[in-house]
Amino acid sequence: MNRPYNFSAGPAAMPEEVLQEAAAEMLDWHGSGMGVMEMSHRGKEFGQIAQEAEADLRDLLAVPDHFKLLFMQGGGLAENAIVPLNLSRGETADFVVTGSWSQKSAQEAQRYCTAHVAATAQNTGFTTLVEPKDWLLSAKPAYVHICSNETIHGVEYHTLPDLQALGCDAPLVIDFSSHVASRPVDWTRVGLAFGGAQKNLGPAGLTLVVVRDDLLDRALPICPSAFNFKTVADNQSMFNTPPTYSIYIAGLVFKWLKRQGGIAGIEAQNKAKAELLYQAIDDSALYFNPVEKHCRSRMNVPFFLRDDSLNEAFLAGARSRHLLQLKGHKSVGGMRASIYNALPLEGVQALVSYLRDFEAQHA
Amino acid sequence: MNRPYNFSAGPAAMPEEVLQEAAAEMLDWHGSGMGVMEMSHRGKEFGQIAQEAEADLRDLLAVPDHFKLLFMQGGGLAENAIVPLNLSRGETADFVVTGSWSQKSAQEAQRYCTAHVAATAQNTGFTTLVEPKDWLLSAKPAYVHICSNETIHGVEYHTLPDLQALGCDAPLVIDFSSHVASRPVDWTRVGLAFGGAQKNLGPAGLTLVVVRDDLLDRALPICPSAFNFKTVADNQSMFNTPPTYSIYIAGLVFKWLKRQGGIAGIEAQNKAKAELLYQAIDDSALYFNPVEKHCRSRMNVPFFLRDDSLNEAFLAGARSRHLLQLKGHKSVGGMRASIYNALPLEGVQALVSYLRDFEAQHA
Repeated sequence: MNRPYNFSAGPAAMPEEVLQEAAAEMLDWHGSGMGVMEMSHRGKEFGQIAQEAEADLRDLLAVPDHFKLLFMQGGGLAENAIVPLNLSRGETADFVVTGSWSQKSAQEAQRYCTAHVAATAQNTGFTTLVEPKDWLLSAKPAYVHICSNETIHGVEYHTLPDLQALGCDAPLVIDFSSHVASRPVDWTRVGLAFGGAQKNLGPAGLTLVVVRDDLLDRALPICPSAFNFKTVADNQSMFNTPPTYSIYIAGLVFKWLKRQGGIAGIEAQNKAKAELLYQAIDDSALYFNPVEKHCRSRMNVPFFLRDDSLNEAFLAGARSRHLLQLKGHKSVGGMRASIYNALPLEGVQALVSYLRDFEAQHA
Repeated sequence: MNRPYNFSAGPAAMPEEVLQEAAAEMLDWHGSGMGVMEMSHRGKEFGQIAQEAEADLRDLLAVPDHFKLLFMQGGGLAENAIVPLNLSRGETADFVVTGSWSQKSAQEAQRYCTAHVAATAQNTGFTTLVEPKDWLLSAKPAYVHICSNETIHGVEYHTLPDLQALGCDAPLVIDFSSHVASRPVDWTRVGLAFGGAQKNLGPAGLTLVVVRDDLLDRALPICPSAFNFKTVADNQSMFNTPPTYSIYIAGLVFKWLKRQGGIAGIEAQNKAKAELLYQAIDDSALYFNPVEKHCRSRMNVPFFLRDDSLNEAFLAGARSRHLLQLKGHKSVGGMRASIYNALPLEGVQALVSYLRDFEAQHA
């Protein structure tokens, strides 16, 4: 039997090949006599694993040399504090609020700086973005923060804003937790990007930070050493013991991504998957997605049944067809299909078949 | 062939049975159709895993009901900031410095409070402890911090100090990273205990905090939400996405510990292992351990060759006998055998045989 298709928003489906490799190497990595979990982070074996993971990710994401790539801990919610601790200088930072995640970021930043909301799409129920031309940036923000893909509301900036074109020379900070490695990143527009690993990179507990070198000089004195980007960078992400096994798994994912044709290859697959699913939803009389078409997320597809009372039957039927974790986030209800890199086209095809069959049954 | 014996100080050897279970369940946990890495932390499957892990650990460590047990991220070095952010109130906290780790804790705490060094064993080269009767506590410390086992210097408080007997009603904070679950804890003497998982509990990246309920009310406003003990406790360690796979592995370790007879059973094994190894070192003319006998660590046994020029030959010979990761910490040199719970008596016996054979060869 095939494995079930897992639409979890994160922690999320992993490539089956990666899990097989990890299982096979669990007790003995490459004849070392140790499992990866058992290796000193200072030893040559783990050193090789970490260096390969970093090099592969840098290659995949085409990260320029003047950016540091950091493996940290705490996930996106911790970064909501760690970023202003490192970048705000206690001054004003601007936030564009397009859903739950950017809202949380703005709220947490207020502990460390003045968080100015430059734009919000709250009045639309977060069903669209605010275009950069409509942002009301402050005079000299320390940085401008966006969440480039909102995991809960399913809205995505498919093109990153160009702050310089807006006359703003502040660094752009992007929370790319839920689209990292699904599409290319235009690093000329970015100062810092962060993301939890548990959607497209690997296990929960690993956090990726990509930061431009010139932004490493401004942490507040109250920034914990373990979360000071310069300290982490100066110690090759080993100031504190890194989440070694998670880095190893992420490294296997990076090699799998390369076998998919890299980011260009996986992006093409992601586009095909998203088009298929949104088309099926739009064609239906039972399901709907409220997000404006130009900014629909390719990773997280929230959808609703026009007849709410069918929700439980829908989920039970999905489980019986081996379509797992489709329940929507509790804050918005309904359904959500997260179709990250590791969820194959066949999974979306199976979901689309089920959508049609369920609708026909309940017409 | 048996697996090699792995003396790493952390990340460290795991019980072989745990690795086998994890490998077997990697693609499908208990018929769920998902690997544990792929499960939503909000789903019922992972909920069961997390609840069992917490209940088993509470049971093993006999944690009273008026303590919260938190699964966090960032390891001991992050806790060096997180603890004063949560407990210091910005006032004075006292530190007893008995090695590298307590020294780092005192240093980091100065970002958030006045860190008063109540005692230090630095003048002995950290080869002994300072007994509580000799501590110079401040008038009203917010808390008193000790590292109850110094991983690098190999000194251990086998009995926790009784602050009340010293006339001090401040909570005692213990960094028990490297002896957690190796011996019982007298919780009547403890306000908060923290430890990285990567020695005795599971994979690096998971951090355990055990905190008394009455200490949850005093975090500084600058404490990041994700590291605020009350926020973490109120959300059952799921305010941010927890390191789910690491919690699962730790849960398997807890069940393994129960099969070893719990903490009493494993403590008896640990005592036997430590006695055997220290005796062999003390009996030898080549090796020595500089720590006073009454406070030698049962987990981390640093030792030195009287003839330094033999170090490389010693390590190469050890590797050829499948005795791994014996090199000492770079800050002190020499050798270190970490003999945590998962390192079996047979491993110590093999090391002792090798110590004797190597000494005979080089007499």
